[in-house]
Amino acid sequence: MVWRARCVGRLATIIGPMFSGQTGWSHRLTGGETIRLLAGADAQDDCAVFRLDGVQELVVGSDYVRGPKFGLYELGYLDDYDIGYYLAMANFSDIAAMGAQPIALLSVVRYPKTMPDERFAQVLQGINDACARVGAPNVGGDIGTAERLILSASAVGVVEAGRSLLRGGARPGDRLCITGPTGVAAAAQKYFGKLDVADTRLSPQAEELLLNAWKRPQALVPEGRSLSTSGLVTSCQDSSDGLKAGIESIAARSGVGFTVEEDALPVVGAVEEVAKLSDTELTPLLLGDSVDFQLIFTVPEEHVEELQEIFAAHGHSAFHDIGFATEEPDLLLRGSDGITRRLPGNPWRHAT
Amino acid sequence: MVWRARCVGRLATIIGPMFSGQTGWSHRLTGGETIRLLAGADAQDDCAVFRLDGVQELVVGSDYVRGPKFGLYELGYLDDYDIGYYLAMANFSDIAAMGAQPIALLSVVRYPKTMPDERFAQVLQGINDACARVGAPNVGGDIGTAERLILSASAVGVVEAGRSLLRGGARPGDRLCITGPTGVAAAAQKYFGKLDVADTRLSPQAEELLLNAWKRPQALVPEGRSLSTSGLVTSCQDSSDGLKAGIESIAARSGVGFTVEEDALPVVGAVEEVAKLSDTELTPLLLGDSVDFQLIFTVPEEHVEELQEIFAAHGHSAFHDIGFATEEPDLLLRGSDGITRRLPGNPWRHAT
Repeated sequence: MVWRARCVGRLATIIGPMFSGQTGWSHRLTGGETIRLLAGADAQDDCAVFRLDGVQELVVGSDYVRGPKFGLYELGYLDDYDIGYYLAMANFSDIAAMGAQPIALLSVVRYPKTMPDERFAQVLQGINDACARVGAPNVGGDIGTAERLILSASAVGVVEAGRSLLRGGARPGDRLCITGPTGVAAAAQKYFGKLDVADTRLSPQAEELLLNAWKRPQALVPEGRSLSTSGLVTSCQDSSDGLKAGIESIAARSGVGFTVEEDALPVVGAVEEVAKLSDTELTPLLLGDSVDFQLIFTVPEEHVEELQEIFAAHGHSAFHDIGFATEEPDLLLRGSDGITRRLPGNPWRHAT
Repeated sequence: MVWRARCVGRLATIIGPMFSGQTGWSHRLTGGETIRLLAGADAQDDCAVFRLDGVQELVVGSDYVRGPKFGLYELGYLDDYDIGYYLAMANFSDIAAMGAQPIALLSVVRYPKTMPDERFAQVLQGINDACARVGAPNVGGDIGTAERLILSASAVGVVEAGRSLLRGGARPGDRLCITGPTGVAAAAQKYFGKLDVADTRLSPQAEELLLNAWKRPQALVPEGRSLSTSGLVTSCQDSSDGLKAGIESIAARSGVGFTVEEDALPVVGAVEEVAKLSDTELTPLLLGDSVDFQLIFTVPEEHVEELQEIFAAHGHSAFHDIGFATEEPDLLLRGSDGITRRLPGNPWRHAT
């Protein structure tokens, strides 16, 4: 159900203007394949309708976010706009990890009857601003009441035929790469969970960097598109379950192992400082359960330089070459101390 | 995130076998356009991937269902399997109402940690059986914990270019039609909410019919496909907000009014009995807020017979011609008493 059909009264006045005029939106893939929105949320129909011309791959995924149950929301560091923004970006990150162009978000926003209009509008505004940022319309979904704020979404993307970036294509010898530093979201939780009231505080800039991992996460859509259209990449996924979990997943699907070079892991100063303040080892923090939305990918060694040039030409930050795939299935860390050991860090795990 | 990547331990043993082998699924539209699942939930990737060949229209929608907050679940009339089944069918009904063929469900199942494995498995089994019923794979989504059971989904469908059934095409003179009787879901709520403990009980068959509106709702996908491929239908939507709300919506989007013939409204005996038992007027029960998943559509008068023949040829039950579109925007009921008045019934309304 695209939602405005159900909305009358105050909701219509909030929602209507946010979604007007999206029908007609279009996108063109590199081979000339086109996608055109024939009926968006503004058409108030049972579903949104796209017309797809040319052979394409369609990618779809869903992510529920804890949203109001995020620790940093409960502590007052995130607001309603932020969790709406996060919902959309978490979903788009899965699309980015497939190398696809997002064409739609479907968002489910259930809210308590006691929630004031302005707060409800802020959630939707956050969702829509994130959609605008990646260039895809929010084509509807479901809005209604519930006992508490519940946020879920699905994202839809398209990619040129044969260009989806799966997890299963890494080959021994491929370089293991990542778009940027990890551990930031986890460090933010550690810091704002308790350390921010300690005697030693981080600089305002470092605090802002940490908090932005939750307030303004970015789905790396342009980077994913470059990885995809380059034709050079053998596997890819996002780091939303943590870096180690991502490496484990590519290894399992590709039937390879990986050796990660500790010295090559990208680190931001704020994360290093949080590790010190909390008396935690840095490397497990970088590898563990931290929802950072970087892209983890593999590329044959002979194409690393070419891919860096493509990144530079598109204005992306240089990616980081952090290790290599092996025939043996083990996941290892070659430490700064020269010793090779099992890859540390607690990956995100489903409750068992 | 397609979910098995996140699942280890007991969940993997429940979920794995339910989703194995779906990659490779395919469907062919009437013009030879093909859809093929390149990476399903069994591929354990960030998203599911489909390859689409030929010009197609893609339809997407989302529905959250109250599920564990359904009155009949709380009263013990629905079980975990039923609410999973309902979740999927509610989503597929939106696809059916577009005249499209479902190609995927993305399901979000968040559950309390205290939920036993068997109950969790029942929810998923209900979802998957509904998917099998309409012939579309459940390609993943999101699974995890929450304070209570939360159910949401998105459905994806495809339809031949130009054949999506929108709400906006009804023209004055078109006949207003519906696939089957309404008011059943609302009557079930009325009856099992309190009347079933009264002295006068319905027959077991009538009770089963009412309950099945909630336990085994059916998205009318084959009927929707016939409406779409016939090329005869000018507008369509499902009756999930109630018959009156559906008529209102087609009227608003098409810029027409409707006159409904009270005598033509299809009625099942059990609903008539519930109206009597509860001392309620029958017609508002048929027109009001009852989630029945029938298809409401309009067709030019000269094509009604041809469309009935198409329905018969495909083995669908005959549809019901219940009124006609008018130039004047009013929504009227021509009563059994010969008097024309405003269309009664309380449509589903978003909280205001």
